[in-house]
Amino acid sequence: MTPPRQLHLNAFLMSTGHHEASWRLPESNSHAGTDVAHFQRLAQTAERGKLDSIFFADSPVLHGNVAQRPYGGLEPTVLLAAIAAVTERIGLIATASTTYNEPYNLARRFASVDQISGGRAGWNVVTTAGDAAAKNFSLAGQPAHSQRYERAAEFLDVAKKLWNSWEDDAIVADKAAGVWADSSRVHPANHRGTHFQVEGALDVPRSAQGHPVIVQAGSSENGKDFAARYAEAVFTAHQTLADAQAFYSDLLQRTAAAGRDPDSIKILPGIVPVIGSTEEESLRLERELDELILPEHARNQLAGLLRVSPESLQLDAQLPDGLLSEDEIEGAKSRYTLIVNLARRERLTVRQLIGRLGGGRGHRTFSGTPEQVADAIQGWFQAGAADGFNIMPPVLPSGLETFVDQVVPILQDRGLFRREYTGQTLREHFGLAKPANSFERVPQPA
Amino acid sequence: MTPPRQLHLNAFLMSTGHHEASWRLPESNSHAGTDVAHFQRLAQTAERGKLDSIFFADSPVLHGNVAQRPYGGLEPTVLLAAIAAVTERIGLIATASTTYNEPYNLARRFASVDQISGGRAGWNVVTTAGDAAAKNFSLAGQPAHSQRYERAAEFLDVAKKLWNSWEDDAIVADKAAGVWADSSRVHPANHRGTHFQVEGALDVPRSAQGHPVIVQAGSSENGKDFAARYAEAVFTAHQTLADAQAFYSDLLQRTAAAGRDPDSIKILPGIVPVIGSTEEESLRLERELDELILPEHARNQLAGLLRVSPESLQLDAQLPDGLLSEDEIEGAKSRYTLIVNLARRERLTVRQLIGRLGGGRGHRTFSGTPEQVADAIQGWFQAGAADGFNIMPPVLPSGLETFVDQVVPILQDRGLFRREYTGQTLREHFGLAKPANSFERVPQPA
Repeated sequence: MTPPRQLHLNAFLMSTGHHEASWRLPESNSHAGTDVAHFQRLAQTAERGKLDSIFFADSPVLHGNVAQRPYGGLEPTVLLAAIAAVTERIGLIATASTTYNEPYNLARRFASVDQISGGRAGWNVVTTAGDAAAKNFSLAGQPAHSQRYERAAEFLDVAKKLWNSWEDDAIVADKAAGVWADSSRVHPANHRGTHFQVEGALDVPRSAQGHPVIVQAGSSENGKDFAARYAEAVFTAHQTLADAQAFYSDLLQRTAAAGRDPDSIKILPGIVPVIGSTEEESLRLERELDELILPEHARNQLAGLLRVSPESLQLDAQLPDGLLSEDEIEGAKSRYTLIVNLARRERLTVRQLIGRLGGGRGHRTFSGTPEQVADAIQGWFQAGAADGFNIMPPVLPSGLETFVDQVVPILQDRGLFRREYTGQTLREHFGLAKPANSFERVPQPA
Repeated sequence: MTPPRQLHLNAFLMSTGHHEASWRLPESNSHAGTDVAHFQRLAQTAERGKLDSIFFADSPVLHGNVAQRPYGGLEPTVLLAAIAAVTERIGLIATASTTYNEPYNLARRFASVDQISGGRAGWNVVTTAGDAAAKNFSLAGQPAHSQRYERAAEFLDVAKKLWNSWEDDAIVADKAAGVWADSSRVHPANHRGTHFQVEGALDVPRSAQGHPVIVQAGSSENGKDFAARYAEAVFTAHQTLADAQAFYSDLLQRTAAAGRDPDSIKILPGIVPVIGSTEEESLRLERELDELILPEHARNQLAGLLRVSPESLQLDAQLPDGLLSEDEIEGAKSRYTLIVNLARRERLTVRQLIGRLGGGRGHRTFSGTPEQVADAIQGWFQAGAADGFNIMPPVLPSGLETFVDQVVPILQDRGLFRREYTGQTLREHFGLAKPANSFERVPQPA
């Protein structure tokens, strides 16, 4: 009997959790965002659950109104390095922007995290939406969506050249002869492109997994094409099974059309599991959280997402007419469409929509017992909608602990999820091949 | 009786050590440069010795010929984060370039390391000499020396504004009222300058020591003026006591002229201690290392530093006439002058000069017993040449272990160096005050 296909599970970590009111719970750590020990313990919990990886979102800007909820925190590549030091196996994925970084710097930093962790690093590539970030980098506003994606593509091409600078066996370390490396196996990038000219080799040798796993999370048309070309794991947000299935098969087709094996990309929709020992308890926890949402703050946030004035949104009315189309939006395009469609489809008032978004900002919120959460995961997984899930606990650390201690064992008992790690690197956890080195001389048959 | 003035000691760490042939010793780890455990153990050794700090140099480029000795390694801010996770007290100083970074990114990353380490971070500010680095960042060659320092000064101004974005008590965390931070105590940078426009507040709250300690290591005229204005610790290289004394008093005068308390800057010359249990043993170790130097490689390096062709340097002759003056050099100016003066003053042949530079690249190499090394340190310290030393072990880990186990106890017995840490932050170790927050509203007397 063939063992069933295996799930991939990532824990998406955010200070006190994904529910925007989680910080107001009595047990929540008010300084969680800058508390490295908090994140180290979360990573150890995820590792105890044999999860594939943990993940941090990022944008180089202080978003939102700090009066109304915690914002800010730690830059994720340095945070991952501090977590690498206290974990052994779990994959470590950080977000970083191709719009506001230089490829040499970023390729180098991710290569270093990959070395420090023994090949456990992943990079969630983002182009960073919003004028606020642009204004921290001497720009008047954000570059256009298509321009950001064009730069991102060239950025990835440069990063890959840099990660291939050193062949795996370049370091020969012949002390007697005084030869440290075989310099014919260390290659300059020699990149001359539209956005970047990068001449030299990277100063970090190639890691155990070749290079960090490339993750992507944008679901716009540009985003999906980018994912098909470069991504090895994709985080995505869907409210319905049909939407998730359509996205899944569309992305596999695009990946094949880009000349890649569809098995070389893993698709993980987000899920916000609100777990109770009974259905009632899970609904009570969900209500408790929703009641802590500050409606004015949430309305301001929603107005920002929809590019309308807060006053145009009436809490007890549906969304106004005349909203922009996705084409007119210059960032977070697919999230915009998801929210508008959700509101229209279910005829939600602004207040109801805020409740639905408060837990997961557009990701699927699912309340239930551990058994029901496992069923929800298995259902989408086996219906061709996912290779696994991006777990977004509404409250941290408790939501991750409950997931690891109560949901993971059910998935293990059903034969859907590993009981022990079988590999060392993030690539091995995700079932991804180590990429070939583009510079490596393939021996020719005689 | 007043206790004597206290020494400050920093350990400058480099893969297998500062002697360029150290990697060829039988016991040296050929992969030390990318081995995080190697550096974590070194940091723990330095912490066992109650040293103020450890330090990593950096340049975003693969320097030199990897055939001839190890080059490359780990990006130092992520390396420091991994070290912070396994240490408690030791200060953590990384080098980063103002020429090839954006202030928002770098201020954020150092602020994050400062948070992760509980206020133990330091930033060695460099402007990065050399065309090779420039060519990794879409430039044809390096910007002029003065232009790099102009940008560096504005970079520091922006970084300080960003580090002051959050007042110390900005986070009020009133869960009942739903107020997380007092937004009147979080300030946008609003920087509009020549090189940078940075609008927003940093997304990392202020650290336990206010902001990372600013370190500087350039000794050109521009470098010394920059240090006088911004630096809180200075690494420098001198071969003679007279040069070190002249530098020390000159820099204190410049610091006072810049309107700062001369006590707010600590000056640490580099020393390469070759330690043996007898004088003979230390000289034997020095000879053993020097004999492992590859003369052709060292001649190429020296030729690069002197901006001449390797063929113009005869191993058994003195330096040729007609070398450039410091004014004509566009990077590492003061190191250039130091090397030329050393060779001329002591009438060294190229081969002898190579031997002198091989151990410490222009820093003072001192061979002797632990007692003699302690004497050398005490001598300069009490002769107005130093506030402490930048210890550059020729071989790692052994050179640091010997220093910590055999030299530090002598300095402690002489009452010159702490037996236990008295503070938690790097600023406390260095005896530097926590900087005031420029945005803080000072209460007015009634």
